Amino acid sequence: MSVLIAPSMLSSDFARLADELKAIERAGADWIHLDVMDGHFVPNITFGPPVIKAMRPHTDLVFDVHLMIAPADPYLEAFAEAGADVISVHAEAGVHLDRTLQAIRALGRKAGVVLNPSTPETVLTYVLDRIDLILLMTVNPGFGGQAFIPAVADKVRRVKAMIGDRPIRIEIDGGVTPETAPLVVAAGADVLVAGSAVFKGGTEADYRANIAAIRAAVDR
Amino acid sequence: MSVLIAPSMLSSDFARLADELKAIERAGADWIHLDVMDGHFVPNITFGPPVIKAMRPHTDLVFDVHLMIAPADPYLEAFAEAGADVISVHAEAGVHLDRTLQAIRALGRKAGVVLNPSTPETVLTYVLDRIDLILLMTVNPGFGGQAFIPAVADKVRRVKAMIGDRPIRIEIDGGVTPETAPLVVAAGADVLVAGSAVFKGGTEADYRANIAAIRAAVDR
Amino acid sequence: MSVLIAPSMLSSDFARLADELKAIERAGADWIHLDVMDGHFVPNITFGPPVIKAMRPHTDLVFDVHLMIAPADPYLEAFAEAGADVISVHAEAGVHLDRTLQAIRALGRKAGVVLNPSTPETVLTYVLDRIDLILLMTVNPGFGGQAFIPAVADKVRRVKAMIGDRPIRIEIDGGVTPETAPLVVAAGADVLVAGSAVFKGGTEADYRANIAAIRAAVDR
Amino acid sequence: MSVLIAPSMLSSDFARLADELKAIERAGADWIHLDVMDGHFVPNITFGPPVIKAMRPHTDLVFDVHLMIAPADPYLEAFAEAGADVISVHAEAGVHLDRTLQAIRALGRKAGVVLNPSTPETVLTYVLDRIDLILLMTVNPGFGGQAFIPAVADKVRRVKAMIGDRPIRIEIDGGVTPETAPLVVAAGADVLVAGSAVFKGGTEADYRANIAAIRAAVDR
Amino acid sequence: MSVLIAPSMLSSDFARLADELKAIERAGADWIHLDVMDGHFVPNITFGPPVIKAMRPHTDLVFDVHLMIAPADPYLEAFAEAGADVISVHAEAGVHLDRTLQAIRALGRKAGVVLNPSTPETVLTYVLDRIDLILLMTVNPGFGGQAFIPAVADKVRRVKAMIGDRPIRIEIDGGVTPETAPLVVAAGADVLVAGSAVFKGGTEADYRANIAAIRAAVDR
Amino acid sequence: MSVLIAPSMLSSDFARLADELKAIERAGADWIHLDVMDGHFVPNITFGPPVIKAMRPHTDLVFDVHLMIAPADPYLEAFAEAGADVISVHAEAGVHLDRTLQAIRALGRKAGVVLNPSTPETVLTYVLDRIDLILLMTVNPGFGGQAFIPAVADKVRRVKAMIGDRPIRIEIDGGVTPETAPLVVAAGADVLVAGSAVFKGGTEADYRANIAAIRAAVDR
Repeated sequence: MSVLIAPSMLSSDFARLADELKAIERAGADWIHLDVMDGHFVPNITFGPPVIKAMRPHTDLVFDVHLMIAPADPYLEAFAEAGADVISVHAEAGVHLDRTLQAIRALGRKAGVVLNPSTPETVLTYVLDRIDLILLMTVNPGFGGQAFIPAVADKVRRVKAMIGDRPIRIEIDGGVTPETAPLVVAAGADVLVAGSAVFKGGTEADYRANIAAIRAAVDR
Repeated sequence: MSVLIAPSMLSSDFARLADELKAIERAGADWIHLDVMDGHFVPNITFGPPVIKAMRPHTDLVFDVHLMIAPADPYLEAFAEAGADVISVHAEAGVHLDRTLQAIRALGRKAGVVLNPSTPETVLTYVLDRIDLILLMTVNPGFGGQAFIPAVADKVRRVKAMIGDRPIRIEIDGGVTPETAPLVVAAGADVLVAGSAVFKGGTEADYRANIAAIRAAVDR
Repeated sequence: MSVLIAPSMLSSDFARLADELKAIERAGADWIHLDVMDGHFVPNITFGPPVIKAMRPHTDLVFDVHLMIAPADPYLEAFAEAGADVISVHAEAGVHLDRTLQAIRALGRKAGVVLNPSTPETVLTYVLDRIDLILLMTVNPGFGGQAFIPAVADKVRRVKAMIGDRPIRIEIDGGVTPETAPLVVAAGADVLVAGSAVFKGGTEADYRANIAAIRAAVDR
Repeated sequence: MSVLIAPSMLSSDFARLADELKAIERAGADWIHLDVMDGHFVPNITFGPPVIKAMRPHTDLVFDVHLMIAPADPYLEAFAEAGADVISVHAEAGVHLDRTLQAIRALGRKAGVVLNPSTPETVLTYVLDRIDLILLMTVNPGFGGQAFIPAVADKVRRVKAMIGDRPIRIEIDGGVTPETAPLVVAAGADVLVAGSAVFKGGTEADYRANIAAIRAAVDR
Repeated sequence: MSVLIAPSMLSSDFARLADELKAIERAGADWIHLDVMDGHFVPNITFGPPVIKAMRPHTDLVFDVHLMIAPADPYLEAFAEAGADVISVHAEAGVHLDRTLQAIRALGRKAGVVLNPSTPETVLTYVLDRIDLILLMTVNPGFGGQAFIPAVADKVRRVKAMIGDRPIRIEIDGGVTPETAPLVVAAGADVLVAGSAVFKGGTEADYRANIAAIRAAVDR
Repeated sequence: MSVLIAPSMLSSDFARLADELKAIERAGADWIHLDVMDGHFVPNITFGPPVIKAMRPHTDLVFDVHLMIAPADPYLEAFAEAGADVISVHAEAGVHLDRTLQAIRALGRKAGVVLNPSTPETVLTYVLDRIDLILLMTVNPGFGGQAFIPAVADKVRRVKAMIGDRPIRIEIDGGVTPETAPLVVAAGADVLVAGSAVFKGGTEADYRANIAAIRAAVDR
């Protein structure tokens, strides 16, 4: 599987989401990453289904929704209806993970599991047949101003070994830049979330250059 | 105090908030009402500080932020920094209401208290000197498809009597239309939140007509 | 409205509910009172929808379900489907009481509100048009070995005055006996829950005599 | 240790528990499995101590109580007094597992730990000397309409290896039928919970045939 | 009833509690006020039963324990055993207030109810026969650096009227000084908690002077 | 690293902390262990920042603060300001462990992680570069009257192997005596918390003898 770039709209201009979505699509984004925070699982509130629903008509790219909420189950249907294609839940966010993943797939969506930086990959052992994506955080979700945690590269390698030949993508979120991306791709990651590294500059030309820089770094 | 119209952006197009804000301002809105839901105090997740911050540069109208979150205290500063002018918290959302209201004012913002439809106004007795606004819900916040609850008109009257000559505004949220607005204004309300009643039609001309219709009904 | 006797199945033999239901119906019960406890709102766990559903075929009497659970909203539909006719929720069990009561009626069931012994009746002010029954606790629900709290008679009187001519029943639960029943009936109560006062003795003849004793006391 | 069949009373007729217990005992059940749900740890409310206490006089079989509740500690004594012989708590239901297991044994009862389908067996590492039973869920507890999760067979094998020669039983719960039972028994399970697979048909003769069918499948 | 001064040990030197207790007793304190905070009901953690137990041998004065904790019920016995004479719980801290108060008295202790600044006195209506003390907060408990809220004087008056001739003390806590004490005593308060106003200076002579100043202000 | 003895002040006389601190320092203590309990993470309330702050001037020994609280993040700064040198949080107390540890170090303090007896050491895999200390509980924290759990020696050995040459101390808490200390030291522990084993007797001479006895046992 080739490496996908998934810009996080959290770094875009929320006052002009339609424009930003079109610009980022033209600039070469593969997926759209959407960071949902509820102020309980993480200490920030970002946006939920109504905002995603409004974004949906403006691009055909995959909506890759990262739920930083607990509990997640009561909201799965709302996110599916709002237009999510991939719905990922934190392994730390509930005790019925197998059930939650079944519910996501029953809604016709791809299911992902997210691990916080400190969470060992052993929590994935018995859900590998339920998932399409594993999202490994390289910063702590919901907190600002953090540095990329390089030790996660080891976790990527172990997860890569665990999944064997299952068609599961490994996604990285947090501090991804042209400098850090090669480390995690070499270890096995194939979806890269990037926020300010993609949206810095603020114009479509910047986005294109920023995405290209990450791809180039990864391809080397 | 004249009656203010506060369109709720929840009924606007989240993909084009900058445009919507400008349109609604030109169409005659007095305040901008912002419905923050965390998926815990109410069963929906809407948006939080990052979205409000992005909206802030596009209008100078008062940002009237209705926090349907619990706890509210950890987020007050973030909403103030994002650009809120009025911050209203639910009386039902915590046990230290006096403290929360002091904290809002210490941030230099106007402080409001919101009451759910079933909550008696007696909870306001000892905070009247701490507040600038009382928001009385005429539907249950965070739930869809509800009808205006006419019994709230009695509550408006009682609250109006309680506040005496204090400069406290009484705001109504839920099912406000040209038909229902006169009822609550007659009872003493002077800020009207309206969602679909303002944004229906979808163009600036519609917004202008919709706002005018509510004003006309109230002025009669 | 005549006074109804609602035996609480909590004092019956759970191993023979079908028999107990038939016996208590033949013995003169008017309603069947069902005490649902979740171990969170109150410190005991009794039974839920599956047990009620199994009881439903064995009598046509009204199933008067007292939910000592929080939150109640996620379970209302299950109790309605299990056969509840009246569903009562505690005013202390959530912050969206108006909404919960609407939801019960939307399920086609009668809606009730329950007040703990210490809860003032002012919480009922704005929901009187949403309810069919007010249940006033004369002991603290979910705790064992308590005495009837006579001060509740005052609350009954005030509630009776509040409801005016609305067709709302006033129910009493806790320590109801031939000695205490007249106090609350005189104050305005018209549904009496009784547990051991009805089921003591353990035979249908006892139940008949016990119910008759309460009725006789009330009629005097 | 021979394989035990533990019919779950959740599939029996709650209106006639005394009769059902006698019938299932005569039909060859080894243990009685009791599924306690509190509506918080799992999304259903079934029954608690009062119902178990009422069942106790009607059979001498082991009462194998599966607590799908959190927290469990405040209720351990009530379940022991109601007649539980084995009390099993979920590893996911609290942070003081060692303490909870000590408390169960201090009450003179057998102690079990339950693992949700997604929970790795590593959580058992440091409590193996505190337990008499490990219950591995092959469906997600408290949710309806689920299929047996075959991947749990691997977990059974790993758990069997972990326990070494300790006298700990391995119990399976969820979707056990004559088709699935051999898989988990071959892997090391020796207590099989079965609900509808045992109670279908509704007569004692059916129960006998159903239990016999599972035993026969296992013995092959 | 004469006015009692209850110094709060929160303003004393925790490293020398035995000495501080003796000094404050000799300096004329009537009661010892103990502020227990759990970091959940209020945003601070102070001390619990072990510290109170260690203080108990060093004075015979009444230990007046203000529980800023939720839930309170599981800890009532520990506080009684540690040496509390009066145990006061917040009306906002639980839904079974009547029960909690019964439990305190069943432990042989005096029972009090505390109201936050924003809480109306109507919550006391049905527990007046269960209590020995009403504690009205004139600052928000658990938060630092707050000013005395003068509007509470109205609440004192209303509470005084409610209690009639019942032998219930009215206690004030928060910002009590020689300047503010007369306001609340005139309104009906008869126990005054004082922290820094009593302990400032740091010597027994200071304590004596500080207490005397409050008494003198009240007596005028 | 030599073995350090860290007396737990929970076994000292809270009425004379200044004296106890000086006595225990003179008696040979290396660190001061402080057990903070909030009544939520564990079923006891001990003390918080104000008590620690009062203790700080009376010794220069390291204050080794064990937080048995959840959530811990809101209180880290208060404990740092009160004088904590090492702040340890439970791995079971939150889902953002990496973040919490970063926050402790950002406050200029040493960071520790505590594991309950049942918690496997795998939870430490990805935080080893964030920590200065691992505290392994040999009793369940916050509960009284428990015996040392010898199986923890295996965990000590595994943790010792995990940390490699990182300068991380391994601390043991619970039932440490001259009899049990050698077991855990042999396995790799180098900080020993001791409560009654150090403070029994009640005089400085006793403390000295008690500490010496543990050291002697360990040195053998």
